[in-house]
Amino acid sequence: MTPASRTTRHLTLGAAALCSALGHGLAHAQAAPASNASSNVSIYGIMDLGVEYRTRNTADGKGVLRVNSGGLNTSRLGFKGKEDLGGGLSAQFNLESEVVADTGATGSAFFGRQAWVGIDQQGIGGILLGRMSTVAYDFTIGHDFMGFAPQYSWVTSTATVPSSAFTSRISNAVRYRGTFGAFKVGANVGLGEVSGSVNANTSRGVSVGYDEGALSAQISLDDGRTGATDTLHASTSNRSWIASGTYDFGSAKLYAGVRDTSRHPVGTISASNPKFHSTLYWLGVSAPLSERITGFGGFYYENKGGTDSDPLMLAAKLHYNLSKRTWLYATAGVARAKSDNGSTTLTGVYRDQTPLSGHQAGLGVGIQHRF
Amino acid sequence: MTPASRTTRHLTLGAAALCSALGHGLAHAQAAPASNASSNVSIYGIMDLGVEYRTRNTADGKGVLRVNSGGLNTSRLGFKGKEDLGGGLSAQFNLESEVVADTGATGSAFFGRQAWVGIDQQGIGGILLGRMSTVAYDFTIGHDFMGFAPQYSWVTSTATVPSSAFTSRISNAVRYRGTFGAFKVGANVGLGEVSGSVNANTSRGVSVGYDEGALSAQISLDDGRTGATDTLHASTSNRSWIASGTYDFGSAKLYAGVRDTSRHPVGTISASNPKFHSTLYWLGVSAPLSERITGFGGFYYENKGGTDSDPLMLAAKLHYNLSKRTWLYATAGVARAKSDNGSTTLTGVYRDQTPLSGHQAGLGVGIQHRF
Amino acid sequence: MTPASRTTRHLTLGAAALCSALGHGLAHAQAAPASNASSNVSIYGIMDLGVEYRTRNTADGKGVLRVNSGGLNTSRLGFKGKEDLGGGLSAQFNLESEVVADTGATGSAFFGRQAWVGIDQQGIGGILLGRMSTVAYDFTIGHDFMGFAPQYSWVTSTATVPSSAFTSRISNAVRYRGTFGAFKVGANVGLGEVSGSVNANTSRGVSVGYDEGALSAQISLDDGRTGATDTLHASTSNRSWIASGTYDFGSAKLYAGVRDTSRHPVGTISASNPKFHSTLYWLGVSAPLSERITGFGGFYYENKGGTDSDPLMLAAKLHYNLSKRTWLYATAGVARAKSDNGSTTLTGVYRDQTPLSGHQAGLGVGIQHRF
Repeated sequence: MTPASRTTRHLTLGAAALCSALGHGLAHAQAAPASNASSNVSIYGIMDLGVEYRTRNTADGKGVLRVNSGGLNTSRLGFKGKEDLGGGLSAQFNLESEVVADTGATGSAFFGRQAWVGIDQQGIGGILLGRMSTVAYDFTIGHDFMGFAPQYSWVTSTATVPSSAFTSRISNAVRYRGTFGAFKVGANVGLGEVSGSVNANTSRGVSVGYDEGALSAQISLDDGRTGATDTLHASTSNRSWIASGTYDFGSAKLYAGVRDTSRHPVGTISASNPKFHSTLYWLGVSAPLSERITGFGGFYYENKGGTDSDPLMLAAKLHYNLSKRTWLYATAGVARAKSDNGSTTLTGVYRDQTPLSGHQAGLGVGIQHRF
Repeated sequence: MTPASRTTRHLTLGAAALCSALGHGLAHAQAAPASNASSNVSIYGIMDLGVEYRTRNTADGKGVLRVNSGGLNTSRLGFKGKEDLGGGLSAQFNLESEVVADTGATGSAFFGRQAWVGIDQQGIGGILLGRMSTVAYDFTIGHDFMGFAPQYSWVTSTATVPSSAFTSRISNAVRYRGTFGAFKVGANVGLGEVSGSVNANTSRGVSVGYDEGALSAQISLDDGRTGATDTLHASTSNRSWIASGTYDFGSAKLYAGVRDTSRHPVGTISASNPKFHSTLYWLGVSAPLSERITGFGGFYYENKGGTDSDPLMLAAKLHYNLSKRTWLYATAGVARAKSDNGSTTLTGVYRDQTPLSGHQAGLGVGIQHRF
Repeated sequence: MTPASRTTRHLTLGAAALCSALGHGLAHAQAAPASNASSNVSIYGIMDLGVEYRTRNTADGKGVLRVNSGGLNTSRLGFKGKEDLGGGLSAQFNLESEVVADTGATGSAFFGRQAWVGIDQQGIGGILLGRMSTVAYDFTIGHDFMGFAPQYSWVTSTATVPSSAFTSRISNAVRYRGTFGAFKVGANVGLGEVSGSVNANTSRGVSVGYDEGALSAQISLDDGRTGATDTLHASTSNRSWIASGTYDFGSAKLYAGVRDTSRHPVGTISASNPKFHSTLYWLGVSAPLSERITGFGGFYYENKGGTDSDPLMLAAKLHYNLSKRTWLYATAGVARAKSDNGSTTLTGVYRDQTPLSGHQAGLGVGIQHRF
């Protein structure tokens, strides 16, 4: 039931009681159908669009001015609903589409962000089935001072060659989630669906979080067996563990984390099938600068094993709140690899773009509107 | 207008009357705009996800464990609305998308399930235009004890080589529907839109149904001229007639039907352009097993002309109702062709999958949530 | 906020005042959440489907009978919302999808019709970011007696070889819009996003309109630098200016306009990279023929520079209103090029189809339902 229908029903009951007291009938209003289709669905989304300039966007060093969707958060449109089944049991669903709002396109799978149904039992936890973000993703996002923004955060994926990343979303997933006092736990398995194999193409993750007062902390393990076709029983493994947290000092909030990623390939090791290990560190701070303005800033640093590129990105953003759900923003990032002499030392400010240079800077201004 | 807005309006009127009686104005509430966009649309859908194990999913006999969308019914998201035009006349529209919820994908045409507008006149019937399910599909679905479930029903399409099926959905369609007492009739034409031809690529169907008390029965004729490119005026014809019905004994409900399918090809007959005839029979039963549990079970048997494969599938499912719109389920199917010696004797439990073996079994458990 | 939620809130306030006066509490109703997701979104759309016969739809002159989506206006589904930010400031968003309702398909980019967010300040105007229709499109559409109908209008694009058209929609757009008394102004820039270039692939447009009493008039300039890959700094330019207007005489309304289009290619001029200039004129009239019926009719004539084809189309339509948002219609178009001797003299009634003949006629009947 959506808040809107709750409002309507409370009002119905309140007004009905009133009418009843006055000797009026209100039969129709009381007959609000229990199976009302509309009232079971809530539509929500984010429209986040801005203008960005980015240096060195081509191999020969040219910059580009762009209208960009998702300067702060991926633009999206979603449908969700929750049904109270009584006795602490509830059912939920979520369908969420990425909107590439600068061109009107959507993600490669339309509901590729979220497409799941779940059952939750208070005190025990719940099971979700479908496509969804990983527990590592959900537990970590609040601990990134840039909030996984495509421009400019490296927490989910560092813009380097080879890329280091943890699994953000999984198909064919079964997920558990539970909250026990200040602790929350989650685990997900993405079935590989390769006939005869229990490993190939699978994803696995487990997370434990702790939220108490000013402190929020979590640790996640993620193992994505994506792209494994070497044999049916073996698979290339992309393993990450992520430890992260925030502490709210009141006047400012501190964000810190570490992501340790290693790739264990099946088959002959090569440039396109590398074995590597890297560690990403991040540290940031946010603080209200006025009644309407909040500032965020910090750095991401990756210790890339086997190379001396070790890229560093400084990133910052300002929010100017127009309301609780609309704000203007400015965001900036500067990335630089330590050395600049080959494909393994390329980097960039944008996690989803092929790095083309040893250093890059970007600056964007935009609007985010939530609905 | 959706039920939600009806509620609001009734409430508006009720409260307005009340306020008026008390000398209050409620001008704004009365000014609820007649052309309110939101109130004209109802959002609905099904999220049906489960885990399924299926044997012999590869040519060399390997099984697979899957997260599956649509164990009972295809997952979907839809938008619909109805406008009362007065004098028994009404307009309706429907847009419905398949959701492949295990990966977040959608069907090949986004609104490929339903995309139509229609006008109905009480006592005469209505005309729909667009893309829609066929009358054969709509009249028959209630008579299949497995409800056309991809796992495990053969009513719309038998998992054999060559496949036998009737037309489920048609593009470029004009459809008539009417209800006269216990009788309902329907007819649809899908225009081929091949310049200069009245036959190529067309679909045609007509159905008559009867619903009275415990009995529901129907007969449908369907002729799909799909894939016809031989000449502009001739076309390969896939003809089916389907007779089916249910009888509700109170303690149990009986389901029975027969689908007779024949393919009349234009051009040289070959393995890829076969001429064939087959007859599918099904028989099933459903019964409440407890206050919350309902069981369904039965068989599908196809008499495949020209081969001795004659596949048989036993299928069953259990619903455990958590509410009127959410249930847990278990579903099982076992399919076997009589002989197992060649491509024409392959079969499978899943109608939409290429059969790979002479026998296959599947077992799934899942959640269906309607909204 | 949608009208529906406004109603609910007004009602909440009205009823709360009432209850308060009666000493009742209505705590829950007052707690209607400010961030209620559902109430922020309005769903709207058009389902427009009909049956059309069109002559000479193939090179050898064959006609075709079709079910067609968008006989009067493109079928669509949209989501929009507006937030009042106080002090005359507001935020808006719009996501709109084309629905090819005869097959259930959608446009090539799902939200390719509209995908934008904007901020408006009363008295100053607003800025939109994303993908959207051009100002030329929005300012001109009300001045076409056929309303840019795919069947049968040439205002946005003439069905000739080479095609002449102005830019209808742009990606990566920044748009200004403002209203000052009877005047409205608009300007849009579509960033090319070609690294190192400020011209390639860009679009630019500016419009001024005037609406006062019976008169509506506008002039637009549009320059689309699409398909420019010759060099990074030069680009092929498709320039149009469009002057148009309507005058409402009460008993009838007059529509008139002129579109002047020229193509200035970069690189070697050829059949596939032509330089050309053409001028389209249109003149039409609409009049209520009865309480329910409105008629529209007129012509489009293009003076094609460099050829003597100079195509002419006569077009007309009838609306039969079933309600304020549903009508039946009949529409007809006849197009003919002056001479009929080569690819540059082909024309057609349908702007989005490759012209195949020197003359063509079409006739359609259908239903349009708005929600």
